[in-house]
Amino acid sequence: MLNFNYYNPTRIIFGKDTISETGAHSARYGKKVLLHFGGGSIMKNGVYDQVMSSLSKAGLEVVALGGVVPNPRLSLVREGIAVCKRENIDLILAVGGGSVIDSAKAIAFGALLPDTQDVWDDYYMQADYEIREALPLGVVLTIPAAGSESSTGSVVTNEAKGLKRAVNSETIIPRFAIMDPQTNYTLPAYQTACGASDILAHLMERYFTVVKHNDLSDRLLESAMRNVVANAPWALRQPSEYRWRAELMWTGTIAHNNLLDKGRIGDWASHDIEHELSAAYDIAHGAGLAIVFPAWMKYVYKTDIDRFVQYATRVWDVSLPLDDKESVVMAGIERLEAFYRALGLPVRLTDAGLGAGNLDKMAKQALIVYPSLGNFQKLGADDIEKILRLAQ
Amino acid sequence: MLNFNYYNPTRIIFGKDTISETGAHSARYGKKVLLHFGGGSIMKNGVYDQVMSSLSKAGLEVVALGGVVPNPRLSLVREGIAVCKRENIDLILAVGGGSVIDSAKAIAFGALLPDTQDVWDDYYMQADYEIREALPLGVVLTIPAAGSESSTGSVVTNEAKGLKRAVNSETIIPRFAIMDPQTNYTLPAYQTACGASDILAHLMERYFTVVKHNDLSDRLLESAMRNVVANAPWALRQPSEYRWRAELMWTGTIAHNNLLDKGRIGDWASHDIEHELSAAYDIAHGAGLAIVFPAWMKYVYKTDIDRFVQYATRVWDVSLPLDDKESVVMAGIERLEAFYRALGLPVRLTDAGLGAGNLDKMAKQALIVYPSLGNFQKLGADDIEKILRLAQ
Repeated sequence: MLNFNYYNPTRIIFGKDTISETGAHSARYGKKVLLHFGGGSIMKNGVYDQVMSSLSKAGLEVVALGGVVPNPRLSLVREGIAVCKRENIDLILAVGGGSVIDSAKAIAFGALLPDTQDVWDDYYMQADYEIREALPLGVVLTIPAAGSESSTGSVVTNEAKGLKRAVNSETIIPRFAIMDPQTNYTLPAYQTACGASDILAHLMERYFTVVKHNDLSDRLLESAMRNVVANAPWALRQPSEYRWRAELMWTGTIAHNNLLDKGRIGDWASHDIEHELSAAYDIAHGAGLAIVFPAWMKYVYKTDIDRFVQYATRVWDVSLPLDDKESVVMAGIERLEAFYRALGLPVRLTDAGLGAGNLDKMAKQALIVYPSLGNFQKLGADDIEKILRLAQ
Repeated sequence: MLNFNYYNPTRIIFGKDTISETGAHSARYGKKVLLHFGGGSIMKNGVYDQVMSSLSKAGLEVVALGGVVPNPRLSLVREGIAVCKRENIDLILAVGGGSVIDSAKAIAFGALLPDTQDVWDDYYMQADYEIREALPLGVVLTIPAAGSESSTGSVVTNEAKGLKRAVNSETIIPRFAIMDPQTNYTLPAYQTACGASDILAHLMERYFTVVKHNDLSDRLLESAMRNVVANAPWALRQPSEYRWRAELMWTGTIAHNNLLDKGRIGDWASHDIEHELSAAYDIAHGAGLAIVFPAWMKYVYKTDIDRFVQYATRVWDVSLPLDDKESVVMAGIERLEAFYRALGLPVRLTDAGLGAGNLDKMAKQALIVYPSLGNFQKLGADDIEKILRLAQ
């Protein structure tokens, strides 16, 4: 177990009809709120009205900025930063899923940057940066997936350059997150499935480490993975059943609030490779992960086959004899692929209708900021291209 | 799953040689520190010198108040409150285990009470109270057990009255906790065992709930329980092996930082009954829990036998046929008792040399503040006495 420093002050307000508390929690941070959201879904399902009503009851002034799209765009981030500066915003309230929250995080720290600094060039495109301050950020979560509601991270896409990049900082951890699983009842099945895939990926990426002796976090991660595997299919079968939605929503937070990987270093290569896929093809992040992850596993498992044996036996209940570790590992990967397929997700590039044309270009582009990806096994451009070919 | 509100802002600084960071973290909260600790163990193992050196390097003024004993006493709490008021203390730094931290928490909020209020009469002895503010509190943890380093709770003993009572408040959650597992190398085996018992109890008390549909927290609790069961015996066998100490120390925090019981209501009757045992006989809390918990289980399991079957199969790997649930449950309780015994703990009152004289008195005394104990099954004085008789 490595030394670590853990801090996560997000207040989670979880459960039925909690959106009515939005105003009271927001009012602790000032008078003027930037309400940041995506498209029309929160208009249709009533969440927008519930939020506005609660903010209004708390006497808050609201400036609305909608239009966030999946793989949230730098151009809207820049617009939000300008609005915050012009309107003297006190608090940003992100209403939506990971894309909305990530966009809001970029605005939150971008709004306090001096004019000599640029949110993209000086932060997202740097390997070495330190975000010193940010406007306070609150969340009303409507899609369980990214875990951004209590994480340090923000991923933004520069649509002009076709680049998708991440920053991390304690300063952009949301101050509060209001999570009502009932808001998920109207999510399309495919979006529910993509969310489950993203949650599972966050857990797997933390799980595959070369750091030894992390027994507790191994077990907690395995538990959370088994929870996704058990509950996601039921959320698809019974989309308006509270308990499945509640399990996925809470697991999505736990999977990414950085508690479950203390003492270890995860491997985020699959996420990074997927970012290239979704930047190039604009496919859903969770679908891209279902394509990349099994291929990544097949490429790297020999680095520590015992870790993959533990994964196959403890997460997927593979019970083949341990004197044939390869078969145990492959059976685990097969069960992962079967799980993705059962959720209606693609597991090959061809399943998603994607060709093989850009694989070498994507592989090179993944390495613009860092010289290699991953920690479980360091990957160069050649490795990444091979993984993408395994995903065909 | 019930609605919940979760907030835990303790910064955890975990790992080898982290005590040298004490001064830097303390300095964020002011200039004058009340250093609160117990007896001589931190003098012998060098922790006191390491802490003083770090505080001194950070330029902090220190007022020392030692003498905390297990089942920390109200008289010393009152003394600490007086010192804080007289010396204008900015931060309380608790160096030790749960008793020292709980005493420090009482001092932290007691120091800010108006003269018209009393820390014991108006808080610990009330079912209905609200702690509004407290001095900031930091921790250097040397004993993994109570989980007080990032919990809302404080348990104090009024030695004059033979009463042991708890309060809970977000205001007394420590701001930071420095946790170096190396400080545990010199813990006596019995104290290590009692710590493991306390950690396991915190997990079991959260586990036994009548609230349905808490799949994730069930799984996380089971994982953490299995971790204690797997690692505690090794910490006794190899007391200076870092990894066992690190697992127990981190599990002790996770077990009691309130994350693992969100959406459910636990049952704290075993803890409450044990408080009467340790108030009456001054035995170690973890030893008392090993005596009380199996008896409590035998008394209440019929309230929800399926929950106990899940406990026996998932935590203890009991594989008896499920058409004989009683045997499955009993086998689980037997394995729990065998685990306690393997750690050198008593599992009956007689094992600890305790007679049966005061059982009815203890049972009545447990109900001074609340009309019943427990949530899984509500217990009156008659029930509590029967549980204590089962523990003979």
